Amino acid sequence: MADLIGGLAAILTTLSFLPQAILVLRTRNTDSLSLVMYVMFTVGVSCWLVYGLMIASLPIILANLVTVGLAAIILSMKIINTVAFHRAASPKTI
Amino acid sequence: MADLIGGLAAILTTLSFLPQAILVLRTRNTDSLSLVMYVMFTVGVSCWLVYGLMIASLPIILANLVTVGLAAIILSMKIINTVAFHRAASPKTI
Repeated sequence: MADLIGGLAAILTTLSFLPQAILVLRTRNTDSLSLVMYVMFTVGVSCWLVYGLMIASLPIILANLVTVGLAAIILSMKIINTVAFHRAASPKTI
Repeated sequence: MADLIGGLAAILTTLSFLPQAILVLRTRNTDSLSLVMYVMFTVGVSCWLVYGLMIASLPIILANLVTVGLAAIILSMKIINTVAFHRAASPKTI
């Protein structure tokens, strides 16, 4: 029973970033997403991946491989939008 | 070394939701947040919490207690905004 709940927890928390990644790719809108969150989260999940490789745990490796990919998509779009916003806001040099 | 990386991973992924919760509380903007993501994520983290209680793991309980609180703040604001949006969009009955 505990394994079932743990498995469900792993599936839900891992796949939850899929609808967010799809939404961000479809709308290109990242206004209400926190840049700090996605930097911390992507680095954190990368650490989980390294940890999984170090202790040779296939479930940890696989779950975090999926999550780091989804988090990287969301973070990339946020960075692209943040850079574009600051470029547009800075005074023209011509 | 693996424990250090794992600990860092746990701290980063848990606390990453703090800047997102602060941003949402400050701006009240949740336009680019996925409702499906936060429903799945909040249920998923709640399952992690139940799993932690079932196997009596204090680190799992504590980490997920913090995350479920932060996720619930973000999800609540998203639901409030979604309900308000649909109310505003529906035709007046008077």
